Amino acid sequence: MKKHVLIIGAGGVAQVTAHKCAQNNDILGDLHIASRTREKCEAILASVAEKGSMKQEGVFKAHGLDARDTAAVAALIRETGAQIVINVAQPFVNMPVLEACIETGAAYMDTAIHEDPGKICETPPWYANYEWQRRDRCAEAGVTAILGVGFDPGVVNAFARHGIDAYVPEVEAIDIVDINAGSHGRWFSTNFDPEINFREFTGTVYSWQNGAWQSNKMFEIGKEWDLPVVGKQKAYMTGHDEVHSLAANYPQADVRFWMGFGDHYINVFNVLNNLGLLSEQPVTTAEGLEVVPLKVVKAVLPDPSSLAPDYTGKTCIGTRVRGKKDGQAAEVFVYNIADHKDAYNEVGSQGISYTAGVPPVAAAMLIADGTWDTGTMVNVEELDPKPFFEILDRIGLPTRVKDANGDRAWNA
Amino acid sequence: MKKHVLIIGAGGVAQVTAHKCAQNNDILGDLHIASRTREKCEAILASVAEKGSMKQEGVFKAHGLDARDTAAVAALIRETGAQIVINVAQPFVNMPVLEACIETGAAYMDTAIHEDPGKICETPPWYANYEWQRRDRCAEAGVTAILGVGFDPGVVNAFARHGIDAYVPEVEAIDIVDINAGSHGRWFSTNFDPEINFREFTGTVYSWQNGAWQSNKMFEIGKEWDLPVVGKQKAYMTGHDEVHSLAANYPQADVRFWMGFGDHYINVFNVLNNLGLLSEQPVTTAEGLEVVPLKVVKAVLPDPSSLAPDYTGKTCIGTRVRGKKDGQAAEVFVYNIADHKDAYNEVGSQGISYTAGVPPVAAAMLIADGTWDTGTMVNVEELDPKPFFEILDRIGLPTRVKDANGDRAWNA
Repeated sequence: MKKHVLIIGAGGVAQVTAHKCAQNNDILGDLHIASRTREKCEAILASVAEKGSMKQEGVFKAHGLDARDTAAVAALIRETGAQIVINVAQPFVNMPVLEACIETGAAYMDTAIHEDPGKICETPPWYANYEWQRRDRCAEAGVTAILGVGFDPGVVNAFARHGIDAYVPEVEAIDIVDINAGSHGRWFSTNFDPEINFREFTGTVYSWQNGAWQSNKMFEIGKEWDLPVVGKQKAYMTGHDEVHSLAANYPQADVRFWMGFGDHYINVFNVLNNLGLLSEQPVTTAEGLEVVPLKVVKAVLPDPSSLAPDYTGKTCIGTRVRGKKDGQAAEVFVYNIADHKDAYNEVGSQGISYTAGVPPVAAAMLIADGTWDTGTMVNVEELDPKPFFEILDRIGLPTRVKDANGDRAWNA
Repeated sequence: MKKHVLIIGAGGVAQVTAHKCAQNNDILGDLHIASRTREKCEAILASVAEKGSMKQEGVFKAHGLDARDTAAVAALIRETGAQIVINVAQPFVNMPVLEACIETGAAYMDTAIHEDPGKICETPPWYANYEWQRRDRCAEAGVTAILGVGFDPGVVNAFARHGIDAYVPEVEAIDIVDINAGSHGRWFSTNFDPEINFREFTGTVYSWQNGAWQSNKMFEIGKEWDLPVVGKQKAYMTGHDEVHSLAANYPQADVRFWMGFGDHYINVFNVLNNLGLLSEQPVTTAEGLEVVPLKVVKAVLPDPSSLAPDYTGKTCIGTRVRGKKDGQAAEVFVYNIADHKDAYNEVGSQGISYTAGVPPVAAAMLIADGTWDTGTMVNVEELDPKPFFEILDRIGLPTRVKDANGDRAWNA
């Protein structure tokens, strides 16, 4: 049983997390939000006030914080009395924040793998490079750490667990599919920080197949999916965090991640990547200025948070589980549909931020009431998914299943 | 009658010009080459020595020079005794170099319009913004200044003059067509300085039609041409220097410039341009670094001079003149075919540099023998083209004509 939440980060996802914490402050207690730029936190608090998101009168304070500095994070945790930390900052700060949680005993959550700014796509399994090296210390200290509890990774891991437990106990394949069928009306934009977005796709595509890590190139393997609401959509095998934990927990299954890309995105990506403009390594101009090309690309692209007012359409993100049940072939697709316009009307953000920012709040509520307060480090598929789905149903991200028996709510 | 040549610049075009001057140093006298980076001049002299290009024993010296500094240029002209200056540096230095020629009495040549680094695509006619403002002063000082005497602008202006004089006296339309049907084997590269290349295409496309300046967008107007040797090729109406002088000298004619582009070039250009990466205006990265996107694009692209060893195929650049002769419809295409591999074997450069670097040497030889030593500022179509063609025939760029009577050498 824990309460009082510190949100770290002040981007599009943090804005959603802040609104959702506010809407549930009767359970979560005092709220705090911190980032390097305190003004960005203040702007989020202004949005929370404007939308009247606080469920009951309570504390919601903004703080300036260099989250790379473990001692500073620990001090802020102690000062605020926060027992739950939701880290939705850039993934470069994950380990310093986790260290601060181990030091103070606060529960830790993030929504993406830790990244070293100078490295792209490290050795699989990714979690073994940073997070799992701290698993024993979390257990010794009794610290609850829920890794990757956004939508993907996060909810899709719970979808996999539920699909296996309820429909396909002899699992043979787990395929996560992420389709954004929305439209932002710009010539080109990424849906979240371009630097992080492009970094996902410039490395090797790792999948777990036939009991081993397989390597492919980005856009090498495409497949058309026919999905609820969004219909037929082309998706490509992509490297992604959740593959690296699901492969450890279900080594007998093939584990793949598929992301939908339109031809236009692929073309822009290929031009920039082939020219070397997505490189994280600096180049020197003829005038002698040293500059990282990817940071210049980020500077000319639209700020993803600016897309929200015009974003229309829906996302479909789900997990298909295939295998056997009672010796018979079995298959289920566990999924969610989110709407960009609905997200904007509710919390002022687009759907991609919404799907990432809501789940850690559901997890925080489960830590607050003790259900998920494990006292150790876990990936989401190691937890009972049902109480998670119950809260997500109520707070904006309902879970559905589709199989041979039809398309319905997960608990219908 | 003048002699002794100072070449300013040390890029791919300057390398060709240096070799060709060396091959004709019996006529041109002492040779000098100067650029900001003296080592680049030394490398060109080493190439001249390696190829044994000097026709007879003589002077060829390298100099360091800031060509933006008129006084420094004038001092070097006096020091070297050069009476002919061939300016093939970046077009940002044209006016300072011309001023030095006016001051010292040396003949001036360049191969492209003067440009202000902070401006793209100024008001037409472009020559009126900088060059023609100095026309009276050249005449008063008796200074020969031949503007734009590369291939295009340059030889194509002479093609237009010849087509009109010999075949189509009642000219109605002048269309210059530039097709590079060669292949450099890289995923993408520009054929000359990417910064200058892209600057040509990010502004308005000006053409002279129906007695007035017309404005279009880049790649808005395409047309398939069926040309000698290179066959059917798609070209697009493009802004280009020679349109701005030919329109003044033949205002009764439509004057258009067409450049060939493959779909791949257009795609890369459109992606970079639509994202804002071809902008000459600085942007600020998230880390606070101010940087000009176009200069970063230049830094990641191949150095065009590195393409030469692998470049194969041919260029076709020519001028189609349409109108009437003796009241009957008349049409002629005056053109040259150049070969990338031949250019590399002869002077170590690719064909694009070759076609630009040879013509000013032919013009220098005509100034040296007095034929083109006009004592005033001219564009190439104001000069008798025949002696120019005679020299170009001998030194590597033969002129051909194609009309209803067949395809043949211009003087056959």
